[in-house]
Amino acid sequence: MNYFSTNFTLGILGGGQLGKMMLYETRKWDIRTHVLDPSAEAPCRIATDYFEQGDLMDFGTVYNFGKNVDILTFEIEGVNVEALEKLESEGKKVYPSAATLRNIQDKGVQKQFYKDHNISTAPFKIYNSKNDLNEIIFREEIKFPFVWKSCTGGYDGKGVSIIREAEDLIPLSEDACIIENLIPFKNELAVIVARNPSGEVKTYPVVEMEFHPEANQVEYVICPARIDDAVAKKARDLAVKVSEAFQHVGLLAVEMFQTEDDEILVNEVAPRPHNSGHYSIEASYTNQFEQHIRAILDLPLGNTDSKVGGVMVNLVGAEGHTGDVRYKNIEKILAMEGVTPHIYGKKETRPFRKMGHVTIVNKNLNTARSIAEEVKKTIEVVAK
Amino acid sequence: MNYFSTNFTLGILGGGQLGKMMLYETRKWDIRTHVLDPSAEAPCRIATDYFEQGDLMDFGTVYNFGKNVDILTFEIEGVNVEALEKLESEGKKVYPSAATLRNIQDKGVQKQFYKDHNISTAPFKIYNSKNDLNEIIFREEIKFPFVWKSCTGGYDGKGVSIIREAEDLIPLSEDACIIENLIPFKNELAVIVARNPSGEVKTYPVVEMEFHPEANQVEYVICPARIDDAVAKKARDLAVKVSEAFQHVGLLAVEMFQTEDDEILVNEVAPRPHNSGHYSIEASYTNQFEQHIRAILDLPLGNTDSKVGGVMVNLVGAEGHTGDVRYKNIEKILAMEGVTPHIYGKKETRPFRKMGHVTIVNKNLNTARSIAEEVKKTIEVVAK
Repeated sequence: MNYFSTNFTLGILGGGQLGKMMLYETRKWDIRTHVLDPSAEAPCRIATDYFEQGDLMDFGTVYNFGKNVDILTFEIEGVNVEALEKLESEGKKVYPSAATLRNIQDKGVQKQFYKDHNISTAPFKIYNSKNDLNEIIFREEIKFPFVWKSCTGGYDGKGVSIIREAEDLIPLSEDACIIENLIPFKNELAVIVARNPSGEVKTYPVVEMEFHPEANQVEYVICPARIDDAVAKKARDLAVKVSEAFQHVGLLAVEMFQTEDDEILVNEVAPRPHNSGHYSIEASYTNQFEQHIRAILDLPLGNTDSKVGGVMVNLVGAEGHTGDVRYKNIEKILAMEGVTPHIYGKKETRPFRKMGHVTIVNKNLNTARSIAEEVKKTIEVVAK
Repeated sequence: MNYFSTNFTLGILGGGQLGKMMLYETRKWDIRTHVLDPSAEAPCRIATDYFEQGDLMDFGTVYNFGKNVDILTFEIEGVNVEALEKLESEGKKVYPSAATLRNIQDKGVQKQFYKDHNISTAPFKIYNSKNDLNEIIFREEIKFPFVWKSCTGGYDGKGVSIIREAEDLIPLSEDACIIENLIPFKNELAVIVARNPSGEVKTYPVVEMEFHPEANQVEYVICPARIDDAVAKKARDLAVKVSEAFQHVGLLAVEMFQTEDDEILVNEVAPRPHNSGHYSIEASYTNQFEQHIRAILDLPLGNTDSKVGGVMVNLVGAEGHTGDVRYKNIEKILAMEGVTPHIYGKKETRPFRKMGHVTIVNKNLNTARSIAEEVKKTIEVVAK
């Protein structure tokens, strides 16, 4: 198949920032793209050959969109899987596959998948509704504290809570949920795996993630993680095992916990380019978006090593600010060494909304980390 | 001025590959853009907020286009300068300025500028027409061999010839021209200078350029040039002198000769991102396109150092091939270490047409150079 400057068309479900960054790569290789997104103001509206506004969860919309492309991928898990299944049954290539997505979309199914495939994960129980959960708590069959996760719809820290007392249960949704033991861990880690249909597999270095205590969003991503080589190897091997269990094609971001005794547990996965891989645009030989394109087109995978150390800071909307966005002091961070801001193009800021990210690279990772703190202190995402 | 996710609009005259790569950066920072280009199939057609098809040499077209943007720049020198002058006189910011462009557009004026500003350049004479030149040759006032350059319209090796005998004069255009001594040189070098309206100046490392003997197009660009530190310093200092003489804003690519006795002579300049800086996308802390945007928006300039060694190979149309393009063996070069192809998006190939480029990066520059040779031997730009 000839993809470059031809009529071959790649379809992308979802037109947010991940799709936008993917489009830098399709543009670089002159690969035709179609994008489907519910918002007329989606960051992917321009830079794609064809943009369609439509509901990603609607069977007909996704099916008809998929009919007109040669290979279909997605940048968000919340898409109609039945449509993907029908497209696949008609011979359309969908990467990652509908089957992979089915195993991931529902967190209960995902956790059960790990158990069935002998992949280490935190002990858990699944409840079909909030009522079922309340009953178990009433009977004192589980004890506080624990981690609650909604089986569906969790994204950017929504749908995950640490429950320390009965009161914390009140705001939870009525949906099916998982309850996990609250594991004391040293580090949250992530490994991005790339796998193509021919079965070639490569992992990126392990990254270390630091979360904002309130918003439950990643605050710093540090590559490489400052951990022992043996632990890093264990994490990368586990990520490959997960990818192969899913028979996954494309990128798979595997989020993990490093426990106090250096055990590695899989937390959850995302079958797409991931926030934890944004550093790769500036730091890696092959950035994660190019790698995803290579993988789904069954091209040879690129080198996942880093040229330099990288730290990523998310740019999230400041508390108390809602309205037309302003990136206060952005010119100050541009004067700092090795700093690259990425502005996603959302016109309106809200508290904790992901508006962009900043990558800081340096040959010395500790220097990059210090500059990242300066960046974090300096730039503010506010309303005008 | 607030540029990010606002209604501020940057206008770009020219919608070719340089504009296309500039748009990766405006997209990254969510800066609104308008692009003007004569071709409906210009590589910039998508990824800009607004694309206008029109003649870059037409006063009214350029003037009206410029009226609707906040800052105007160009990615090609062949634009109507009178329109830029009128826009400037009405208070519009044009970077680089019309005055800079006037001093560069005509190679006779450019050479005279160097002489007037005491900038080393090869000795030259200017003739107003081919007739004038023929007369001088008839009178034997100049001797073969010499270098002939058309004063206007030279691009991609057109408009430059080495004249070794009378017969070589036949295909030359009737236009005004410069005649230069044929200087024996060790190396062709280039330095990209960035300068912002506040006067901040930075130079990129010196690159070494190797030309295709027939097409007179760059075949390899190697960064850093494998030359003495003292020679490199001399080249960078000279480039800054040139930039300041022009009071240039934006990027200025200064092409130079290193003579047998290590003198540095300015050959010519381009007031824009340049083929000799494409390596920077993968190799530099700040790529040349981001740097151009920083410069013209009067933002702080980024670090011009390299993360890794870089070699760039142009992808030009193979001889004997005209028609719909195919990048033969592109999947083979994708399997090589540190290789990134860039496909500009021109649908039709012609002999020696610039269709794309490939960057090869490696911590070891010699390894990158060897891989670049493999790339050159492997990929072919052919008609289907």
